Amino acid sequence: MPGNQFGQLLSLTSFGESHGEAIGGILEGMPAGISIDLAFIQNELDRRKPGQSAIVSQRKEPDSINILSGIFEGKTTGTPIGFIIANEDQRSKDYSHNEDVFRPSHADYTYQAKYGMRDHRGGGRSSARETAVRVAAGAFAKILLSHYNISIHAWVNSVGAISIEKKHTELDLSQIEKNSVRCADPVIAEKMIAYIDSIRKQGDSVGGTVRCVIKNCPAGLGEPVFDRLHADLGKAMLSINAVKGFEYGSGFAGTLLKGSEHNDAFVNENEKIRTATNFSGGIQGGISNGEEIYFTVAFKPVATIMMEQDTVNASGEPAVIKGKGRHDPCVLPRAVPIVEAMSALVLADHLLRHRSSQI
Amino acid sequence: MPGNQFGQLLSLTSFGESHGEAIGGILEGMPAGISIDLAFIQNELDRRKPGQSAIVSQRKEPDSINILSGIFEGKTTGTPIGFIIANEDQRSKDYSHNEDVFRPSHADYTYQAKYGMRDHRGGGRSSARETAVRVAAGAFAKILLSHYNISIHAWVNSVGAISIEKKHTELDLSQIEKNSVRCADPVIAEKMIAYIDSIRKQGDSVGGTVRCVIKNCPAGLGEPVFDRLHADLGKAMLSINAVKGFEYGSGFAGTLLKGSEHNDAFVNENEKIRTATNFSGGIQGGISNGEEIYFTVAFKPVATIMMEQDTVNASGEPAVIKGKGRHDPCVLPRAVPIVEAMSALVLADHLLRHRSSQI
Amino acid sequence: MPGNQFGQLLSLTSFGESHGEAIGGILEGMPAGISIDLAFIQNELDRRKPGQSAIVSQRKEPDSINILSGIFEGKTTGTPIGFIIANEDQRSKDYSHNEDVFRPSHADYTYQAKYGMRDHRGGGRSSARETAVRVAAGAFAKILLSHYNISIHAWVNSVGAISIEKKHTELDLSQIEKNSVRCADPVIAEKMIAYIDSIRKQGDSVGGTVRCVIKNCPAGLGEPVFDRLHADLGKAMLSINAVKGFEYGSGFAGTLLKGSEHNDAFVNENEKIRTATNFSGGIQGGISNGEEIYFTVAFKPVATIMMEQDTVNASGEPAVIKGKGRHDPCVLPRAVPIVEAMSALVLADHLLRHRSSQI
Amino acid sequence: MPGNQFGQLLSLTSFGESHGEAIGGILEGMPAGISIDLAFIQNELDRRKPGQSAIVSQRKEPDSINILSGIFEGKTTGTPIGFIIANEDQRSKDYSHNEDVFRPSHADYTYQAKYGMRDHRGGGRSSARETAVRVAAGAFAKILLSHYNISIHAWVNSVGAISIEKKHTELDLSQIEKNSVRCADPVIAEKMIAYIDSIRKQGDSVGGTVRCVIKNCPAGLGEPVFDRLHADLGKAMLSINAVKGFEYGSGFAGTLLKGSEHNDAFVNENEKIRTATNFSGGIQGGISNGEEIYFTVAFKPVATIMMEQDTVNASGEPAVIKGKGRHDPCVLPRAVPIVEAMSALVLADHLLRHRSSQI
Repeated sequence: MPGNQFGQLLSLTSFGESHGEAIGGILEGMPAGISIDLAFIQNELDRRKPGQSAIVSQRKEPDSINILSGIFEGKTTGTPIGFIIANEDQRSKDYSHNEDVFRPSHADYTYQAKYGMRDHRGGGRSSARETAVRVAAGAFAKILLSHYNISIHAWVNSVGAISIEKKHTELDLSQIEKNSVRCADPVIAEKMIAYIDSIRKQGDSVGGTVRCVIKNCPAGLGEPVFDRLHADLGKAMLSINAVKGFEYGSGFAGTLLKGSEHNDAFVNENEKIRTATNFSGGIQGGISNGEEIYFTVAFKPVATIMMEQDTVNASGEPAVIKGKGRHDPCVLPRAVPIVEAMSALVLADHLLRHRSSQI
Repeated sequence: MPGNQFGQLLSLTSFGESHGEAIGGILEGMPAGISIDLAFIQNELDRRKPGQSAIVSQRKEPDSINILSGIFEGKTTGTPIGFIIANEDQRSKDYSHNEDVFRPSHADYTYQAKYGMRDHRGGGRSSARETAVRVAAGAFAKILLSHYNISIHAWVNSVGAISIEKKHTELDLSQIEKNSVRCADPVIAEKMIAYIDSIRKQGDSVGGTVRCVIKNCPAGLGEPVFDRLHADLGKAMLSINAVKGFEYGSGFAGTLLKGSEHNDAFVNENEKIRTATNFSGGIQGGISNGEEIYFTVAFKPVATIMMEQDTVNASGEPAVIKGKGRHDPCVLPRAVPIVEAMSALVLADHLLRHRSSQI
Repeated sequence: MPGNQFGQLLSLTSFGESHGEAIGGILEGMPAGISIDLAFIQNELDRRKPGQSAIVSQRKEPDSINILSGIFEGKTTGTPIGFIIANEDQRSKDYSHNEDVFRPSHADYTYQAKYGMRDHRGGGRSSARETAVRVAAGAFAKILLSHYNISIHAWVNSVGAISIEKKHTELDLSQIEKNSVRCADPVIAEKMIAYIDSIRKQGDSVGGTVRCVIKNCPAGLGEPVFDRLHADLGKAMLSINAVKGFEYGSGFAGTLLKGSEHNDAFVNENEKIRTATNFSGGIQGGISNGEEIYFTVAFKPVATIMMEQDTVNASGEPAVIKGKGRHDPCVLPRAVPIVEAMSALVLADHLLRHRSSQI
Repeated sequence: MPGNQFGQLLSLTSFGESHGEAIGGILEGMPAGISIDLAFIQNELDRRKPGQSAIVSQRKEPDSINILSGIFEGKTTGTPIGFIIANEDQRSKDYSHNEDVFRPSHADYTYQAKYGMRDHRGGGRSSARETAVRVAAGAFAKILLSHYNISIHAWVNSVGAISIEKKHTELDLSQIEKNSVRCADPVIAEKMIAYIDSIRKQGDSVGGTVRCVIKNCPAGLGEPVFDRLHADLGKAMLSINAVKGFEYGSGFAGTLLKGSEHNDAFVNENEKIRTATNFSGGIQGGISNGEEIYFTVAFKPVATIMMEQDTVNASGEPAVIKGKGRHDPCVLPRAVPIVEAMSALVLADHLLRHRSSQI
């Protein structure tokens, strides 16, 4: 497959460039008969869209979803859900200065190398605008998961060196949507917002991490060997623009522990087999064990900055480039719904896969 | 697909339990006419097999590969390569004490939850013995890649808190196979070996990291959006037993940098477009840019330890378990060829995918 | 996968119901840099659309394609081509009488059984309207194939008992588009048209066969074992609405021959290895041999007729149904471009697959 | 995928050449906990093996299956079932005369064209020996289907011009395994056997048809649009060696009927919705409707004959070839279990796919 499809039984195929007429997708595999709350779908898109606060890109895109099929009288029909999201505020001419120059740490050079040509308007297919399609599809997946009481919660855990210090189990997740940076700790949120604002004024950009928790996932999801639940989650996260790393459960810090410290003892809690600790991150042998699934995703600083940078043009001649247009100084606040959406697609897919294996 | 298959155009399907008659696989998609050096294939397996040094499991498995198809007169025929590796030193009775008890941080409980039953002999399908199949298939992939001069080099970068401090570009990679821990820094290697030995004597286990570099990968490999080269590498790594995290290029540390520090300026070096730095890790927009690809993989401490641990049995009653049998106190030295093999499968698959897209 | 996707490397994902807002698709895998003649794409759709002649449905659908991505400055970019085709002349109320009644030999009952609900407006997803998406995608595939000089020619070979008697090698294929029934023999075409007209006046319907020839296919396309070229062609044809059978080369008639009569002797013709006869239909062992590929597809009579028929409603009570709305008395003339489109998708996919296997 | 894999959720990957060490496969997706009767598996293989009667090839292959994984204490574990079947009576030297010559209507020339080389011993991968793997996998699928009371019955319907005249609903299917040609009509069976014997003595070969009926398939199996149940059955059949055509339900003969004759009226039979006739062949809109599924498969005469035939060698020079070795004068009797096996794989796969779509 040429790489624009995600999922086996709940499967999203995506299309669209940042500066074409529209982006969109086809979501296959939603079971029939599920009520779809369109306002919820749109709200998820609104959480990702530009212009929602002072610390993100000011591009004006309503990101209104137009669902073309697969819903009849408010319910899924079991047939594919086709949808489009128009590109309205394109301003391609903001990018005319890029036509012949490779932007550092963007995909300009690699697309040129791969395809022998590229749509230079805002990155074309490589633009993060494509993630709106994921958020729309993920919203459907969240609705499916809600039938099983599974919920997904992501938040910004760090921006540069400013990081939440509390364990995720100590956080009040209802705080996340109450601040513009989507940090689960309101005090840290203020620091992050101030820092992003200062970075924006410098014309620079900054990276950070998103943490995600999945609650009420039943034991048994995930496949042995290659399609381990965390491997599919990892691929999902690493497929998001600007992501540089993924860790789940104890993660990289777990490499510093001994087995006697790291193993999660099984205990019987009210006639339910649980683990006393959760270094496993809710997944053992690639299969969910019923505990909370949690993981962290690293995002690099945004490549587009409002400062002069050295580069070359397509002929290899030295050039200087400086960002124009409307860009995010930090992608983290808008990455939160994307992380959730990709998580939802993975979980819902594995839910359907698991069901098919039960005689 | 039920999860035992990896790759699109170069595709490995795997089978086998640790204590069944044999494990094996089918590798589809090797182009026809490639000379296969069987000694090289076997040598790769020997790098992974138990009993190769004092710091790994002493299970005696020759891991001899028996290739059943797809090779004719020393060359690939273009048809699938079926192969098996016998399980010879099984000692299933080492595991009879596990029949009714869930080993902490193993897959016993999750397999039971998923399948309603499990093969309790040494983990069955969840055992890392399965990775021998990956190493065999990866050896074929390495041969294919060698036709394009692409080479893959992994080493143990840290064991617990003992870590190489040098940048990978400063290391002498020819040192890796000269010490039993497969560390690229001989001085650090000695410390790691001594530490693993002390951990082994305690009956405990320890984790660490493997780093991997891919050299001479041409620009253009990787697909847009979901099948980004690093996303497929990440999934490949996260599908290996005991892996908890993956980062490429600047990774998690890159989240602390500003865009102005992190961006890789393009330069013209002897009429070749290159980057002045390589925070991108050789991949931009999910597509290789011709620079070195590098990434790091986190392995947790081995779950089986020779110490008493609290757990429960299948009825939820408290139990105490203590490892028996022959186990690795640290998987890192044997993980090196596995990381290389999975990298080779990803690269070779994307090489074939890229070729199919060129008119 | 949930069944709305076709092809491996050139892959079409389809969505849409007959009476929703639009139908459409995503075509992945078109190599970059191919000039796209939009007038050709639209012309292919015009060959399938209703209302094009007196012998087909009079539904008024312009079937104008709107391409939303994947084309930049007139050329493919290598990224997915998203497109939609609006449903304009829907008249859903023509179907309100069907809401609770199962139309005989339609998919009403089976969709209800599968999904527990259905979109009763004109068949919803089961409507042949969906084939417009295939024709659009097939037009792109034809453009790709034209770069390799491969051409595809289908025609109506029989309508009921009225059949072309000549061998396909004796026909003048330039006649096909010169008559409204798309028969390659103008004399037989007149008889077919008169017969379809009489059937239409009776309120009845009629079946027939389409034959297809693929010229200039190079030797080597097709995969061993399961994905034989003719197996993929057969699946492609059998996936078209109303198709009941597929045969290639000598087909069912070939079962009456002895091996000594049926074998195609190899000959050297101007330094090219060819076959003296072509009972093989251009495919041997599932792989093209360079001769003409030809096959025949059987279409049943249209299920919707303007006559009273016995049936039951969803409660199992007896009911009588009579077709309303605008229907084809014979699908064959409009099936011709669909057969070509699906053939083009199969050939182009196998062309890309073959390319990926050549080191 | 490179073409050696069949099925989505119940998935067979196959390997092996006719004259290599062994053939085999990996069957993924069998749900856990199903008791496996190994004698039944072997018996299915015995129905396909050579040497079972005077009218088939006298090659002596016990075709003993060796199951290497996926079964524990007599039950499936949910993990992949790896199995091999040794090639014991290979006599490669019977084929040494073929090394440089293309056998007419075999795959010699096309494999050479595709791969630039070939394993000339008995066809290598293109040999029908590969179908033993399908029969083994199909036997597992039959066991799965038996849990749902679904049964599959194939028989030889015609050999050359000798054909059963009765409708399949009038046949006593218990007769099939009582004669060596596997014809459901004992009187016709005698004629077929005598005819095959005379053809064998002439050194010639003959084709024919196999018919198959699937009983007790519940309504609802099959996917819309591309993966219609009959499309997947058709591909499955067309992937079998020597198959030239497939038709289901009314098939090609149905093209001669009018809609008013062909439509299957729905009736209420004992509170069950059924059809009064079954021209639909148990499938409507690509989805099973609960009636008997039936179809017919056309097999060409065997290409290998014991008569001199004109051909060319790899240099294009004229040559004469004459079959040696042990060949079937008619593949039909041995094709019966292959048709059943492929049918079972399709049905079981769609059964699992259907289950995954039910919330």
